Amino acid sequence: MASVLRTAAQARPAVARTALRPASRLTPVVLHRKYAAAAAAARAVSSDSGERSIFPDEPSGPSVKTAIPGPKSKQAIERLSKVFDTRSLNMMTDYQRSYGNYIADPDGNVLLDVYAQIASIPVGYNNPSLLLAATSPEMASALINRPALGNFPQHDWADILETGILSVAPKGLDQVFTGTTGSDANELAYKAAFMWKRQQQRGGAGVDFTDDEINSSMQNQSPGAPQLSILSFSSAFHGRLFGSLSTTRSKPIHKLDIPAFDWPQAPFPECKYPLDQYAEENAREEQRCLDETERLIKEWHNPPAAIVVEPIQSEGGDNHASPNFFRGLRELTKKHDILFIVDEVQTGVGATGKFWAHEHWGLSSPPDMVTFSKKAQTAGYYYGNNELRPNKPYRQFNTWMGDPARAILFRAIIQEIERSNLVQNTANTGAYLYDGLARLAEQYPKEIQNLRGKGQGTFIAWDSPRRDEVLKTAKSQGVNIGGSGAQAVRLRPMLIFQKHHADILLEKLDTIFKS
Amino acid sequence: MASVLRTAAQARPAVARTALRPASRLTPVVLHRKYAAAAAAARAVSSDSGERSIFPDEPSGPSVKTAIPGPKSKQAIERLSKVFDTRSLNMMTDYQRSYGNYIADPDGNVLLDVYAQIASIPVGYNNPSLLLAATSPEMASALINRPALGNFPQHDWADILETGILSVAPKGLDQVFTGTTGSDANELAYKAAFMWKRQQQRGGAGVDFTDDEINSSMQNQSPGAPQLSILSFSSAFHGRLFGSLSTTRSKPIHKLDIPAFDWPQAPFPECKYPLDQYAEENAREEQRCLDETERLIKEWHNPPAAIVVEPIQSEGGDNHASPNFFRGLRELTKKHDILFIVDEVQTGVGATGKFWAHEHWGLSSPPDMVTFSKKAQTAGYYYGNNELRPNKPYRQFNTWMGDPARAILFRAIIQEIERSNLVQNTANTGAYLYDGLARLAEQYPKEIQNLRGKGQGTFIAWDSPRRDEVLKTAKSQGVNIGGSGAQAVRLRPMLIFQKHHADILLEKLDTIFKS
Repeated sequence: MASVLRTAAQARPAVARTALRPASRLTPVVLHRKYAAAAAAARAVSSDSGERSIFPDEPSGPSVKTAIPGPKSKQAIERLSKVFDTRSLNMMTDYQRSYGNYIADPDGNVLLDVYAQIASIPVGYNNPSLLLAATSPEMASALINRPALGNFPQHDWADILETGILSVAPKGLDQVFTGTTGSDANELAYKAAFMWKRQQQRGGAGVDFTDDEINSSMQNQSPGAPQLSILSFSSAFHGRLFGSLSTTRSKPIHKLDIPAFDWPQAPFPECKYPLDQYAEENAREEQRCLDETERLIKEWHNPPAAIVVEPIQSEGGDNHASPNFFRGLRELTKKHDILFIVDEVQTGVGATGKFWAHEHWGLSSPPDMVTFSKKAQTAGYYYGNNELRPNKPYRQFNTWMGDPARAILFRAIIQEIERSNLVQNTANTGAYLYDGLARLAEQYPKEIQNLRGKGQGTFIAWDSPRRDEVLKTAKSQGVNIGGSGAQAVRLRPMLIFQKHHADILLEKLDTIFKS
Repeated sequence: MASVLRTAAQARPAVARTALRPASRLTPVVLHRKYAAAAAAARAVSSDSGERSIFPDEPSGPSVKTAIPGPKSKQAIERLSKVFDTRSLNMMTDYQRSYGNYIADPDGNVLLDVYAQIASIPVGYNNPSLLLAATSPEMASALINRPALGNFPQHDWADILETGILSVAPKGLDQVFTGTTGSDANELAYKAAFMWKRQQQRGGAGVDFTDDEINSSMQNQSPGAPQLSILSFSSAFHGRLFGSLSTTRSKPIHKLDIPAFDWPQAPFPECKYPLDQYAEENAREEQRCLDETERLIKEWHNPPAAIVVEPIQSEGGDNHASPNFFRGLRELTKKHDILFIVDEVQTGVGATGKFWAHEHWGLSSPPDMVTFSKKAQTAGYYYGNNELRPNKPYRQFNTWMGDPARAILFRAIIQEIERSNLVQNTANTGAYLYDGLARLAEQYPKEIQNLRGKGQGTFIAWDSPRRDEVLKTAKSQGVNIGGSGAQAVRLRPMLIFQKHHADILLEKLDTIFKS
């Protein structure tokens, strides 16, 4: 096992030797093309399923040698504890020895990873294409010359955006404001919404602030600091900074003791699964939630400037609703002249079998803003309407405004996704995996309840009455799985997760349920 | 000029050729030592001042060839504008051609940079030591395998922290919570303060949340979302996310139209400069502000859990106060059992001639938390008291919790600072520069008013009645300078800024003031 796991230190000179020489005459695009051809030639056929492996040289399966954490991990945890809070620690990780879908620990254990750094690793650990991007001269420059993008953008920033972040912009949205994390992305979008709404109330971009607005803003009082809100949904998760946490309604432990804005919370539909079997009942539940949303828009004492919603509520327990519900929200926002923000921080970048999960909805007009992070490894919000650019400079601004290094990495991720058709792979693998889980659910009805995510790629979850025990046992079986909400097991594999990986996962689950 | 400016693409193979071969047998430490020796041998003697140049091969001075922006810059700005808001743009930048203290643009203009990406470039553009760190195998791994640090820390995370971020921890603070930006760092510190204060009110870490707290937190209502506050000061700047913006009191344009918490603002002393000439008057002003701070702590309807203060108010106009004022704040926080957060996002990492600006104060006990970012190129808060770790996991948590790639870069920055004794250099250069500016102030009393920053390294500013015109003219003279507040010119050079650079700056200012 260990022999097929390359460390980054070993892999890098190898890549450099074959592809980077003579580096000075080749552009990164040409270099990448060379590597891609080499990788394609090296593709192996998996003996288990007969499918072509997307990620060459991956381990053929998990390998568990010690209890987890083993002795070396325990030692590392003890040392880290002294300087860093480790009480949320799940598994001490050796990233140099992790590869593809497999995560390694310091004790030599190698696990199939279907949690992927809380859904944020897109194309595999130590992906050679990303390694190439990470060792490129432009990456080095981006790392050591980090710009204040709003003041001193690099001359090729437009090019990096257009060939990267914007090349996968949701339909109808052709601009971006870049940020650093999912929370940051959402808060930036909220700020854009507030400025837009106040400008509208004021009578347009040409109308100046009043003295009262100017003075009261400095006192954190209205009208300068307006009594407006962002409407979110029960069980939503949009981040943990003060504004985003005010829209997060996942769990008390996320919110306790932190001051919050008095913003409204509409009920998210509590649908029955599988969705299509309970279509009529679910439609009634969704209509109830839409009605309550509309009531809150009209009546909440701090009127919303925007609605924010996740296509699938992730941290809150993998809660799904139908496209009809989301179309309904879009209509409500139009009717009441507020903005529709879709938070694709966890659902975006291919995991649901579409590049953006909201593509499943068939909206008649695009969302006003779509926020992204995690698998993008950078963050920000897409928008299309020029009115969402505030009317003066320095209103939507901060020192770094994102990070070109991470934007360059996202471009490499996008190229890797396109090269290996990974969104389609995720749709196909997801369908295969869902069917396998449905069979297991029939066999073990007490273990797999409310299976959900059909047709949503590998974005699959179920409820488990003994969830935490299952997750723990899975580790000893060589599978790293995450939970969400109170009792959901959520699968969040990478986009390179294939049928032969699904087979391993299904087999391990069978073993766990038997026990 | 252009010949001495290396592009990163050119520089990298050169470094790789001399130092990286054979990479597989050498650790980054050994590689760095080799480079450092080469750099030391290459050090030139500046013909102007006779001092040894810290940064070899720097341009000997600025070179302005076109109006700024020139034709190529204009073209790049026009293109970028279509997808990215460019109304705050100061100068389109070519980072590959920037070097040391000099920033280049696409038109071939090369400017002495004393703004340094809003005070965030520590040791020069395209610094070869940072380049080495940026192209190391561990950096590549950190970039392409970004961990969810709270759940899956890398096995050497303790080592990276101890040899990097924690090796420069302020005295008395030996732990860190890592983040991504200055705003993020402050908000994380605020959250820690709120959890600490509520735990204390509740009666300790062992006392459980009440049902009322649990339920009300999910409704964004007290007691679960408590009516507590963070006290900040007039003209303060602590960031632009919703919580940090509520403590920011710099300018209306930063705050207008964004909802804010009803938190208290104490007056920051309006001292007269130079501080020592007005010691008695300033002491009275500082006492007035301390008294008002105490009154707000006792009487504000949303009681503060903490005070946050910058050692020198930066964005707010470079406002200084004496060590006595800050010692007074520390005493007040102890007396009233609240926390003392020092925001060193702009002042930290050497710019004031100490590694941390609060070292100038002679505090009897360290701050409870010190936040950092900008020149650190990463972010977070230092703390020492174990009570600041919340009583349960997942309370202070988010997906990434910082970025090991940037932590590795900060380590390289620290090593570079120590290798070339850059904090001492900044103290020395600052004293020299201040004296030169004092002479110019005598010569041009209408141009340089309220000169401030004596004994504070290069963290120097003055008021200018025609500030924006001066900044603009400076650019045409080949110097990139920033402003702050309403009329301050602020100098924020890098730590490699030396006397021969100060001479150029002083000469250019003389030319500007003559005109």
